[in-house]
Amino acid sequence: MEISPVNLAEIDTPAVLIDVDRADANLQRFQAFANSHGLAVRPHIKTHKLPRFAKRQVELGAVGITCQKLGEAEVMADAGLTDIFLPYNILGEAKLNRLVALNERVTLAVTADSETTIRGLAEAFGDTGKPLDVLIECDTGMGRCGVQTPDEALTLARLVDGCTGLRFRGFMTYPKIGAVEENEAFLAAAKRQATEAGLDPRIISNGGSPDMWRAHEVTSATEHRPGTYIYMDRFQVAKGVGTWDDCALTVLATVVSCPTKTRAIIDAGSKSLSSDTFGMEGFGRIAEFPDAVITSLSEEHGIVDVSGCARKPQIGDRIRIIPNHACVVSNLFDEVVLISGNEVVEVTPVAARGRVD
Amino acid sequence: MEISPVNLAEIDTPAVLIDVDRADANLQRFQAFANSHGLAVRPHIKTHKLPRFAKRQVELGAVGITCQKLGEAEVMADAGLTDIFLPYNILGEAKLNRLVALNERVTLAVTADSETTIRGLAEAFGDTGKPLDVLIECDTGMGRCGVQTPDEALTLARLVDGCTGLRFRGFMTYPKIGAVEENEAFLAAAKRQATEAGLDPRIISNGGSPDMWRAHEVTSATEHRPGTYIYMDRFQVAKGVGTWDDCALTVLATVVSCPTKTRAIIDAGSKSLSSDTFGMEGFGRIAEFPDAVITSLSEEHGIVDVSGCARKPQIGDRIRIIPNHACVVSNLFDEVVLISGNEVVEVTPVAARGRVD
Repeated sequence: MEISPVNLAEIDTPAVLIDVDRADANLQRFQAFANSHGLAVRPHIKTHKLPRFAKRQVELGAVGITCQKLGEAEVMADAGLTDIFLPYNILGEAKLNRLVALNERVTLAVTADSETTIRGLAEAFGDTGKPLDVLIECDTGMGRCGVQTPDEALTLARLVDGCTGLRFRGFMTYPKIGAVEENEAFLAAAKRQATEAGLDPRIISNGGSPDMWRAHEVTSATEHRPGTYIYMDRFQVAKGVGTWDDCALTVLATVVSCPTKTRAIIDAGSKSLSSDTFGMEGFGRIAEFPDAVITSLSEEHGIVDVSGCARKPQIGDRIRIIPNHACVVSNLFDEVVLISGNEVVEVTPVAARGRVD
Repeated sequence: MEISPVNLAEIDTPAVLIDVDRADANLQRFQAFANSHGLAVRPHIKTHKLPRFAKRQVELGAVGITCQKLGEAEVMADAGLTDIFLPYNILGEAKLNRLVALNERVTLAVTADSETTIRGLAEAFGDTGKPLDVLIECDTGMGRCGVQTPDEALTLARLVDGCTGLRFRGFMTYPKIGAVEENEAFLAAAKRQATEAGLDPRIISNGGSPDMWRAHEVTSATEHRPGTYIYMDRFQVAKGVGTWDDCALTVLATVVSCPTKTRAIIDAGSKSLSSDTFGMEGFGRIAEFPDAVITSLSEEHGIVDVSGCARKPQIGDRIRIIPNHACVVSNLFDEVVLISGNEVVEVTPVAARGRVD
């Protein structure tokens, strides 16, 4: 790939294109919405993994950022981000040492959902002089991490509150899509019980892009952590969160074969689009051929059923695909191409890509 | 991650472990099998993406290697590999220029399945002085790239044969799993027709690990291109290609949460294991808890149903997962940990990871 290409035609495929105007509009739209509801925004950077967009999110009003991995948080701290939430159970000496070092240089908070995690954090931070902020993760319906009841949340909140080196800050959830009432009921109960117990649950952190336009209905929440909202993707459009015209990330690919009248092969496979389906048919939407269906993927091939297309793709055609899931695509490419309209703005490395631990 | 860790306990999670003894045994086993049948081996390096293993494959008797991407081939050429097959339709000026440069320094062959691809290759190589070897890709049942009939194969073979700068070398397929007879019938017909037409189809290249122990049944084939055989994985075991004890690649992960009696959460999600299922239930086999089921993945979380486990995983447990698909895991990690038994041999960068174009 060219270092400083002058136009999009010089970008070899497959490549990830980021429409910076669309991305910025997406950021502004949700920030304005949250502002109108008095809700803080703490964007999840896993979607873009780029310091420039994290900084832009803060510039637009975000109170800080969210990272899913310590390694991502370190990249963002190196880039100058100063307020980072890491909603993950951090365990083990190696990671705890890194967490202590990170806490020395940024405003940091983590989550915990077990006594084991809390004891480990307390041991690591006991005599550091700068306590670590801890939120209790609540499973409000998603069925992933998190305590199962507000009572358990209170128990762990008290445990954190009693640990030298830790400071209890509130509750966090990554909610089940669509379960807004269930989510609110859990968080409200946890908040009330903690308050009644004399604790200070000042942050109630809710997350996810799919229900972000209903974020204000979770009235106990003080902040929201959307991630995918910056780029949107096929799943978010399916959920009604945005439109095709809001999708800022596309995978540029080339048609490399048309073995039959109804089949085209593209040079974007699972190594470019990932195998994520989220229960949808197909592996992305081809902007130029919306009636085509990417029926299956090998690592370096996408198999496309073009039987529904009035005009058929031809070998050599360059196409743009809106992937099912934008976040995972960011992790598959060492660099992305920032564009404005059809002009290339810059080719930039994905700084926090591949930070697995 | 440590640069030179002395033992496995110092390796932070998630991490990819490669058991070098198992990998070497896997390589030797298939090479011996192929030797006994007079079949050349041309391993696909997409699985490991590591020059050291490519060199070892050649040392053990492989006639050369296979790469799926030009970028992978360039990495391997840089590392000293001298005979590379790139079974892909190479299109476009940027890639064709790179292909010409690569052909100057290694023995190189590509595939084509259309007149468009062949015309492009012919134009790029017409006056380079060193012709490019071209095999015609045949769709013998897989339904991906490839001409649909032996007649079409002959037509393209003749076209290649008539192009200055190109040299027709034979036919290639990536076959449908289990369709050995169908595969052989197509290749045998293509070979016979080309020979009768006065052409020299001296290489008939068959591929895939799932049917590699039946490779000799495709009697017209002169070479086989297994990829996953070096590491094996859950899919290959399901197909009977190897056993759990042959699996050389595992993902080391940590149990980070046990929110309920029947659910454990691990720090390996789709960013470590990929979402590939190949139609199987679950996203990998946990060696220490074979009755556990990894039911779903977020990017950084694996959700594990432990209801079937007599002994349950505990928070902080380190586990090893045999993934559904080893090749895609190699692409998700910047480095892998080579081990012998439980000793760390070396932590090495995955040199050809992320070579998307």
